[in-house]
Amino acid sequence: MLADDALGARRETPDELGPYERAFTRIDGDPQQHLMVAELPADPDGDDAAVRTVGTLHLTIIPGLSRQGATRSLIEAVRVHADARGTGLGTRLVEWAVEESRRQGCSLVQLTSDVTRVDAHRFYERLGFEASHLGFKMAL
Amino acid sequence: MLADDALGARRETPDELGPYERAFTRIDGDPQQHLMVAELPADPDGDDAAVRTVGTLHLTIIPGLSRQGATRSLIEAVRVHADARGTGLGTRLVEWAVEESRRQGCSLVQLTSDVTRVDAHRFYERLGFEASHLGFKMAL
Repeated sequence: MLADDALGARRETPDELGPYERAFTRIDGDPQQHLMVAELPADPDGDDAAVRTVGTLHLTIIPGLSRQGATRSLIEAVRVHADARGTGLGTRLVEWAVEESRRQGCSLVQLTSDVTRVDAHRFYERLGFEASHLGFKMAL
Repeated sequence: MLADDALGARRETPDELGPYERAFTRIDGDPQQHLMVAELPADPDGDDAAVRTVGTLHLTIIPGLSRQGATRSLIEAVRVHADARGTGLGTRLVEWAVEESRRQGCSLVQLTSDVTRVDAHRFYERLGFEASHLGFKMAL
């Protein structure tokens, strides 16, 4: 799913899983990192228990000093499989992240979205986010 | 310093330090959080060893799955005391953050800046950052 859009196709290497597996181990060992995945039955008509992943969201909890020592959360890697778009899954993933952030005592949830992802901007605004900031990035 | 600008003045409570002290303890106990402070002698003409803080930067290291399992860093709370502005201190703080991010294996450094902080935007662009994203926030 990470590679399944115009930006991701340039950035990801789905045929070489080593870097992703190492990253997963690191995320899994950090109590401030939370990965949510959405799954559907691999065979909707069968009895098979096998599932396939159709959505992802990565949430990081970040303590801070500003805003009266506010803890904030950062949403990354929101992806919904092409087969599951239009089902409200993206909304459910982000609503889960907001609820989990609240549960962990965060007073702010933030994310950045590429300036070219106009549909995503509308999606986040509908969910109550405000495009109050510019997001600066630098590749190392 | 957090309260010493138009946005911070509305958000901070410098007379009530408890929330900041609790947040500091939490930051201090998390190996992915790095606070850098810049200090100057409290009395530049004296022999006193006392110092005062004139700059801050908070750096968070965040493992991730996207971009081939890239680790990224997030810069927050970049503040320079009014007495120390125009001295290049802000540049040194951000350059430290970029260097530390590289040292920790990050392939991306990111930050958000309020859309009204036009001077800050030029500052980050001069340092090599690109305003490639919109930054969305939601208060909880």
